Amino acid sequence: MKAITLLGSTGSIGTQTLDIVSQYPDQFRIVGLASGRNVELLAAQIRQFRPSIAAICDEDKLPTLKEAIKDLDPQPILLAGEAGIIEVARYSEAQTVVTGIVGCAGLLPTIAAIEAGKDIALANKETLIAGAPVVLPLVEKHNVKLLPADSEHSAIFQCLQGVPKGGLRRILLTASGGAFRDWDVAKLADVTVADAIKHPNWSMGRKITVDSATLMNKGLEVIEAHFLFGMDYENIDIVIHPQSIIHSLIELQDTSVLAQLGWADMRLPLLYALSFPDRIYTDWQQLDLVKAGNLTFREPDHQKYPCMKLAYAVGKAGGSMPAVLNAANEQAVALFLDEKIRFLDIARCIESVCDRFRDDNSANPSLDDIVAADKWARLEVLAATENFDARSRIISLR
Amino acid sequence: MKAITLLGSTGSIGTQTLDIVSQYPDQFRIVGLASGRNVELLAAQIRQFRPSIAAICDEDKLPTLKEAIKDLDPQPILLAGEAGIIEVARYSEAQTVVTGIVGCAGLLPTIAAIEAGKDIALANKETLIAGAPVVLPLVEKHNVKLLPADSEHSAIFQCLQGVPKGGLRRILLTASGGAFRDWDVAKLADVTVADAIKHPNWSMGRKITVDSATLMNKGLEVIEAHFLFGMDYENIDIVIHPQSIIHSLIELQDTSVLAQLGWADMRLPLLYALSFPDRIYTDWQQLDLVKAGNLTFREPDHQKYPCMKLAYAVGKAGGSMPAVLNAANEQAVALFLDEKIRFLDIARCIESVCDRFRDDNSANPSLDDIVAADKWARLEVLAATENFDARSRIISLR
Repeated sequence: MKAITLLGSTGSIGTQTLDIVSQYPDQFRIVGLASGRNVELLAAQIRQFRPSIAAICDEDKLPTLKEAIKDLDPQPILLAGEAGIIEVARYSEAQTVVTGIVGCAGLLPTIAAIEAGKDIALANKETLIAGAPVVLPLVEKHNVKLLPADSEHSAIFQCLQGVPKGGLRRILLTASGGAFRDWDVAKLADVTVADAIKHPNWSMGRKITVDSATLMNKGLEVIEAHFLFGMDYENIDIVIHPQSIIHSLIELQDTSVLAQLGWADMRLPLLYALSFPDRIYTDWQQLDLVKAGNLTFREPDHQKYPCMKLAYAVGKAGGSMPAVLNAANEQAVALFLDEKIRFLDIARCIESVCDRFRDDNSANPSLDDIVAADKWARLEVLAATENFDARSRIISLR
Repeated sequence: MKAITLLGSTGSIGTQTLDIVSQYPDQFRIVGLASGRNVELLAAQIRQFRPSIAAICDEDKLPTLKEAIKDLDPQPILLAGEAGIIEVARYSEAQTVVTGIVGCAGLLPTIAAIEAGKDIALANKETLIAGAPVVLPLVEKHNVKLLPADSEHSAIFQCLQGVPKGGLRRILLTASGGAFRDWDVAKLADVTVADAIKHPNWSMGRKITVDSATLMNKGLEVIEAHFLFGMDYENIDIVIHPQSIIHSLIELQDTSVLAQLGWADMRLPLLYALSFPDRIYTDWQQLDLVKAGNLTFREPDHQKYPCMKLAYAVGKAGGSMPAVLNAANEQAVALFLDEKIRFLDIARCIESVCDRFRDDNSANPSLDDIVAADKWARLEVLAATENFDARSRIISLR
């Protein structure tokens, strides 16, 4: 019976993790839950899974939470704010912490969990993208496992299990191509929020679905793969695979290629991150290649999707630059979702902010440096876009 | 430096193995060679690879072989006949024996190699298809490895490396569909030898190419996979995949699917069988999924290709029945290649012989039982077809 703490329990990753836990009550139990704002759902989750500890990030909602579960006996420890989330992350009973918090907010709690010796089921990209210079040494020091829980990195991780040290030659990340893969590049200027949050294959949160539409998600995954698997950027490639059946591939030294396949169901990588190294029987729909139809592949269009090349360049620059990329992207996507900037402005905005950071980047940033870079990038995006008319193009940023 | 003995050195598997060995002189050395009849090529191979021991099956050719290499110093031990091949197979210096002998002739030498404690790079299907009741207990007793060297089983073996015990749920063998995959079933009656030995994707020996055209190769692979990976026949499936890029797949308990991919190049599984568990760098052409084109899949047509269902039934019957299937197939294919029977007669012939063996099958055959069943089946095919006109259909077999 594996004891699990779940950070970001009311989001997309969180609810799917709880789906799995409820399906396997003899394999997994929830000891800690943490969420952002959705107090009603968190209360319901506490009622169902009876964790020992729980926290809500929005401190104003703590009284509501307490009221909502006051009849439970025993009462869980209830905390609030970022400090509360961190307490949940390091709570002693858990063996594995699932980090389903979207964005850079997941970084500090994940570090706390690593320092407390927990294995990390990593559904939060930013832990490595922003935090790698700090996180990777801690992972080594505390000898914990980083278990990727997103489909692409899980695919690579699954394929790598039987590969000897030094056997990996190249990583090939598959990309669905996102919401606009079949749109003409000229039409991208007029994309609406409603267009961008319709993902063709995966059911995910709004922010990640927009990242998928800009292909920034793939750029971020390249950086994450670099840190997770110690692979040079020159040997991480992207291929567009519209069917999302092959979730990623690895090429070995002898040119043999291994791939992981499945229906587009986020529960599969989540389950493997929870059950690792075991394989638990599920009654989920089995893959049927004949039904899946033709599997097709094409080169990514860097003209149409500048975010990929941007991410490679940022990854190679290293230091705090990936944190800046990630923060600028989060802020720009938030502005787009608020209809404050247009779709094509997202990439422009990020590139401009990264450009301006170049001279301030340090090779070995501390956690403070990273957090400061993250804050700076968000403010830069906000400042640069403050005076914009959402209907007009960004001509120059500041 | 791995010491290798190669049985069947002048055949398709043999020459490709030597290609690999000559590319990696610091990784592999040849200590033993054995071949059937091609004395000129064997002599040239001895000259190039300087084994300590060599044998030719055709005893009449031993003097020619001796003459051809009489200038070599030191001289290798030279032997002939089946007994000679067996001596080569068990020769002390080798760590791994590559069994590239086509057909049931490979069985006895492979057993000798296992008893001598050699790991087996298994390119000879019959070792397990006919010999499993005897071979598998010996493999366990002598604690040697069976390393599949054909593309499908190597694919499964590669995918399985990181899978925990009990994690395997289903095996999915891919089939190119063979020479006649796009032919109308009605046209199969008029197939010529020239038609049948043209494989769309793989360059292989004549016998195996015909097996590929009848899809008996896939039926035999199902039986081999059953023995090699301990999987029930109910959980071994076949899918037609005309591009031969995905070489086979495994499904795990959680419905995750792993696959091995590569260009259709027999050297890749051979190299892995030799280098296992390591992955050696090669400069062979890297897989390019965009160039590979669409990957398609369809259900196998059991109406058009009765050999697959026959193989499943025979596999489930067990005992010596797979030896009978295999021997009848070898003999029938030989008759077809000699233009003594027609293409569609191959399956009819085999089915009829298997039917007649049913009552004599024993659950736990000895090696003598298996060898006797093999001989019986060959004679049955010959007897049944002796009086045939190759232009007419077989109406009844005896």
